[in-house]
Amino acid sequence: MTRLCTIAMLLTMIGGHALADPLPSWNEGETKSRLIDFVTAVTDPEGPDYVTPADRIATFDNDGTLWAEQPVYFQLIYAVDQVAKMGEADPSILATDALKAAAARDYKALLATGKEGLVEVLAASHANMPLATFQAEVADWLARERHPQTDMAYDTMLYQPMLELLSYLRDQGFKTYIVSGGGIQFMRVFAEEAYNIPPEQVIGSSITSTYEVVDGVPTIVKGGDVFFVDDKEGKPVAISHHIGKRPILAGGNSDGDFQMLEWTTAGDGPRLGLLVHHTDGDHEWAYDREGHIGVLNRGLDEGPDRGWLIVDMKNDWGRIFPINPNWKRSR
Amino acid sequence: MTRLCTIAMLLTMIGGHALADPLPSWNEGETKSRLIDFVTAVTDPEGPDYVTPADRIATFDNDGTLWAEQPVYFQLIYAVDQVAKMGEADPSILATDALKAAAARDYKALLATGKEGLVEVLAASHANMPLATFQAEVADWLARERHPQTDMAYDTMLYQPMLELLSYLRDQGFKTYIVSGGGIQFMRVFAEEAYNIPPEQVIGSSITSTYEVVDGVPTIVKGGDVFFVDDKEGKPVAISHHIGKRPILAGGNSDGDFQMLEWTTAGDGPRLGLLVHHTDGDHEWAYDREGHIGVLNRGLDEGPDRGWLIVDMKNDWGRIFPINPNWKRSR
Repeated sequence: MTRLCTIAMLLTMIGGHALADPLPSWNEGETKSRLIDFVTAVTDPEGPDYVTPADRIATFDNDGTLWAEQPVYFQLIYAVDQVAKMGEADPSILATDALKAAAARDYKALLATGKEGLVEVLAASHANMPLATFQAEVADWLARERHPQTDMAYDTMLYQPMLELLSYLRDQGFKTYIVSGGGIQFMRVFAEEAYNIPPEQVIGSSITSTYEVVDGVPTIVKGGDVFFVDDKEGKPVAISHHIGKRPILAGGNSDGDFQMLEWTTAGDGPRLGLLVHHTDGDHEWAYDREGHIGVLNRGLDEGPDRGWLIVDMKNDWGRIFPINPNWKRSR
Repeated sequence: MTRLCTIAMLLTMIGGHALADPLPSWNEGETKSRLIDFVTAVTDPEGPDYVTPADRIATFDNDGTLWAEQPVYFQLIYAVDQVAKMGEADPSILATDALKAAAARDYKALLATGKEGLVEVLAASHANMPLATFQAEVADWLARERHPQTDMAYDTMLYQPMLELLSYLRDQGFKTYIVSGGGIQFMRVFAEEAYNIPPEQVIGSSITSTYEVVDGVPTIVKGGDVFFVDDKEGKPVAISHHIGKRPILAGGNSDGDFQMLEWTTAGDGPRLGLLVHHTDGDHEWAYDREGHIGVLNRGLDEGPDRGWLIVDMKNDWGRIFPINPNWKRSR
């Protein structure tokens, strides 16, 4: 009797596992099928495409791939908000056109100051402070501020279908990484809670930092020079440096991810490249070939021939955000 | 009956686990007790010092801590052997005093050429080649060459007690990392097999690298400039960059590890710093305050007051290497 119970219970568990849809927010169709087929193939120990768990490395861009990136990268909004806050406390720090534009939250004027102006704003908000101070400020900002259009907390503007994909991959023995142009220590503030991705699996751009004993307290201090830009050709380099292995799956949404997908899918054996194509102007933002954020040209031109999966957000996804799924841009 | 069997089996497993010595090559005494007490404390969910598994980060230096480092760092022997091999194939490359000294395996003459000469030898053997080529060469070298004094393969000159400590920590939910001045991509060639530490948990010094499509093949190419020196103040910086967390246990053997131990043990809650003190001149090499390798002054002076565990190799360890344990230096 006990034995029968056990068997019945096991069957229930196995059956439940096989029948449950691991990607409920993905509409049925070729995109979803190809994702599931890929994962099934690399995890089938009897199949020709089996990949040992240690090599099931999946890397994902963050901005525009795992969370939203409009109207500008959220990290830039953080920088601008910080400069505004600092300017309120001490207006004398607003010594340049870029800092003044940031304090006024005039993005147009800020962008007009060019790369140099952006660097000033990033430096004022990111550099020359203890890492712990920086990360506490980011956590405060995430808790306090809301997106100007959706009124949602920034760290809830995650793509529900991608959250499901991350979970599905981990359930199937993958190790999931973020490989983003965003700041490595910025993303670590929310990546664990948002994506279940621990700090050591977050790779990003960085400025130099130093180790100093400040008033007897050992401290990591963020400096002011660029250390590494984790974009375009930098992404495969960063993966090689941090992980030491070539991924078998890589996902992105812009031409900044091209080289990561190119390197990933050029490896031997089964490989999957995935590009999130922002086509849902009703529930998110529709953009690709033009603009200042998430430009996608080469990926659209060459991706299909390279066998990359182009995810059509409007048609392939049944919802965008985990909460507030009915938010419409027109509101 | 079945139920009794299950209970009996479980009791056997629990008992076996509790009774088995996790560190059989460590002699009984204070050092071993403190190690086990620390691990027991941080893994006891009912105790005041409990640390959640995600925060059980342990970082170890490699040269002189996990494997031997005499008469010179093994990676330098690799560099010299490579220059000698290249010089045999094409003597014209031996264009400088340093390269000539390396080709003649004249370490005294090589060291006399100073830092500049060492950089030439490292560059000739490590730089400006595809990463895959470099790592294949390292693997060949490890398979082929033997240590001049022990006649052992370099990647078997591991410290058996430290292998046991790594396994014990992992069994207790720790994530073990290498944080070494050695080359990150050099160590990854053997770290997984030698230590059960996968590439993504190996942190080291590095030169720049680039991503290039070479004859249509996406390739990571090692360049020629220093990217990061993972020594002294660099170690906490590298840990912060790669792991994004402060370890709760750090082990080293030289003053190059001082800052890693200082930062680790300055954190809140239970912390352990460990220094391997090379005291066994019969079975390994005895050295500390003087010389060109593994110099340990500040650690010996300040470590005990900081509560760091000074591991006396001669008295605390029952054997040195996993194989050939009876090798004696005098042979």
